[in-house]
Amino acid sequence: MARRILLLTTGGTIASLPTEEGLAPGLAGAELAGLLPRGITDAYDLTIQDILHLDSSNIQPEEWQTIARHVFDNRREYDGIVITHGTDTMAYTASVLSFMLRGIAIPVVLTGAQLPMTHPLSDGLENLRTALAMAASGVAGVFLAFDRKVILGCRAVKTRTTDFDAFESVNWPLAGMVDGKGLQIRRESIPTPAGGCTLRDKLCDKVFLIKLTPGLDPEIFDMLLQMHYRGIVIEAFGAGGLHFVRRDLIAKLQAAAQAGMAVVVCSQCLYEPSDFSLYEVGQKALEQGVIQGRDMTTEAAVTKLMWVLGQTDDPAIIRDYMERSLAGEMA
Amino acid sequence: MARRILLLTTGGTIASLPTEEGLAPGLAGAELAGLLPRGITDAYDLTIQDILHLDSSNIQPEEWQTIARHVFDNRREYDGIVITHGTDTMAYTASVLSFMLRGIAIPVVLTGAQLPMTHPLSDGLENLRTALAMAASGVAGVFLAFDRKVILGCRAVKTRTTDFDAFESVNWPLAGMVDGKGLQIRRESIPTPAGGCTLRDKLCDKVFLIKLTPGLDPEIFDMLLQMHYRGIVIEAFGAGGLHFVRRDLIAKLQAAAQAGMAVVVCSQCLYEPSDFSLYEVGQKALEQGVIQGRDMTTEAAVTKLMWVLGQTDDPAIIRDYMERSLAGEMA
Repeated sequence: MARRILLLTTGGTIASLPTEEGLAPGLAGAELAGLLPRGITDAYDLTIQDILHLDSSNIQPEEWQTIARHVFDNRREYDGIVITHGTDTMAYTASVLSFMLRGIAIPVVLTGAQLPMTHPLSDGLENLRTALAMAASGVAGVFLAFDRKVILGCRAVKTRTTDFDAFESVNWPLAGMVDGKGLQIRRESIPTPAGGCTLRDKLCDKVFLIKLTPGLDPEIFDMLLQMHYRGIVIEAFGAGGLHFVRRDLIAKLQAAAQAGMAVVVCSQCLYEPSDFSLYEVGQKALEQGVIQGRDMTTEAAVTKLMWVLGQTDDPAIIRDYMERSLAGEMA
Repeated sequence: MARRILLLTTGGTIASLPTEEGLAPGLAGAELAGLLPRGITDAYDLTIQDILHLDSSNIQPEEWQTIARHVFDNRREYDGIVITHGTDTMAYTASVLSFMLRGIAIPVVLTGAQLPMTHPLSDGLENLRTALAMAASGVAGVFLAFDRKVILGCRAVKTRTTDFDAFESVNWPLAGMVDGKGLQIRRESIPTPAGGCTLRDKLCDKVFLIKLTPGLDPEIFDMLLQMHYRGIVIEAFGAGGLHFVRRDLIAKLQAAAQAGMAVVVCSQCLYEPSDFSLYEVGQKALEQGVIQGRDMTTEAAVTKLMWVLGQTDDPAIIRDYMERSLAGEMA
């Protein structure tokens, strides 16, 4: 019997049509599915719901909640769910859904396209059929399917602006790939969902990302405290370098942590883990409450912190959540 | 006759020694050179100057000026200059020197190591000999030599925290590479220096980098104006996406540009150019004075803006400088 798959559409390039002001999300899900060859649509028992019509640059925490709610409410009626989404922020959405829908027992697969589905050379066809196959696989979790690859949601990063091979699985092997044997799933790269799934969709949007540049004035920390930010993720230099000569970022970072701000240090290098404890000043900062981002992507670190601060304001619980893997986002 | 090469040392992992508080820059340049095999040192007429002893996280605009001054003052006495430098901010230094020393008539080559030179498996040996060969090549410009690759300085990005293959040439072919035929220089990837070299070392440190995250509060622009920032580089989503629903970043960005702030839009995708004009809102923002970062790396965009704002406060000149290639940083 064909697997029951729910297709949720949110807009994005895949559903775009040319308008006088450039591309704009226009295709409904039924039209999108209508552009797939019969051999693909006949393979699944497909239901379609259009939930948003947005360019993904406008997909923000409120939309994450809308998407998570739709997945959660439909999780028992379907064998798998595919979400079409613009590519620009898809990695953020894939990451945050991994936390909001932790423990989900079915596959939830985000996909999209670099060229509109109506274009005769669109990658949407390839991406959609990979996503549908993954959604029908019975392997639980949140994934991103693109260019014949399946990536664990909380490990995806958009690394290319136009190439069809737009996403990479960072610091983690692929969850699956399509080749001459069909969809090859690598179960050893996919964490087993822990317990049941409760929708935990509260988020804190007062999280700021600082990508460090040489000479950055530490005063920015004071401003962020004044602006009532509750969390900061810092993309430090290399494995965790921060300047402290003349402009003492380390002192500010410790002061912010002591003032109750959740401070997470990651790397601005795309690949390989950060390790703030390698640095003498890093060790001291960690003692003052600064949290290590380790091998998390920035997308995962930021959305995880937004999610964790939505769940609790207890510093010990925040730290505990941030320091262990909840959905495969850290090794 | 052996080429006259000046080795300027600034610290970094390559010159580090284990101390009780972890690695700290300790080796003088003479000791560093003493760790090279005779076959390498005998090939060049080597002079050494130790100018800084810093972890590169602490290399900031003031140090860029020190380094640039030393290169400039010695440019007529040597055939080429090698600068040893920590890896964490080396790409920023390589970028900014490309602007500060624009038109330099000799090779200036930054290098360093992921493992201290005193370690029997250090990559410093390989990196130094590549850098020395490039410095002796007679090919003018600012370069970064690492893991048998030579990268145009303003195209280098540190992409890996620990691998020896730590740097990539982003959106531009390699300037050279080492193989069984020795150092292969790709002259077609190296811009010809325009005119003579004047030291233009004034920099503006009031430049802020925003790596956009979904839902970022546009209020940050007001704070940056209040803090007297003169320039902002934005790493937007994908090819140039910014949110404007509920939280209107586009309006703030236009207002900031109208208020005299230099606003440059780049991509947070590591690879491939951004193109803000693809977006309807982008087109409008460009009309309001927002500047395109196109295919520049973030390191080049930030340091170029710091340099341009150090040269002038005329908006038309700022825009003109930012929109054309000065050292090969944009296509």
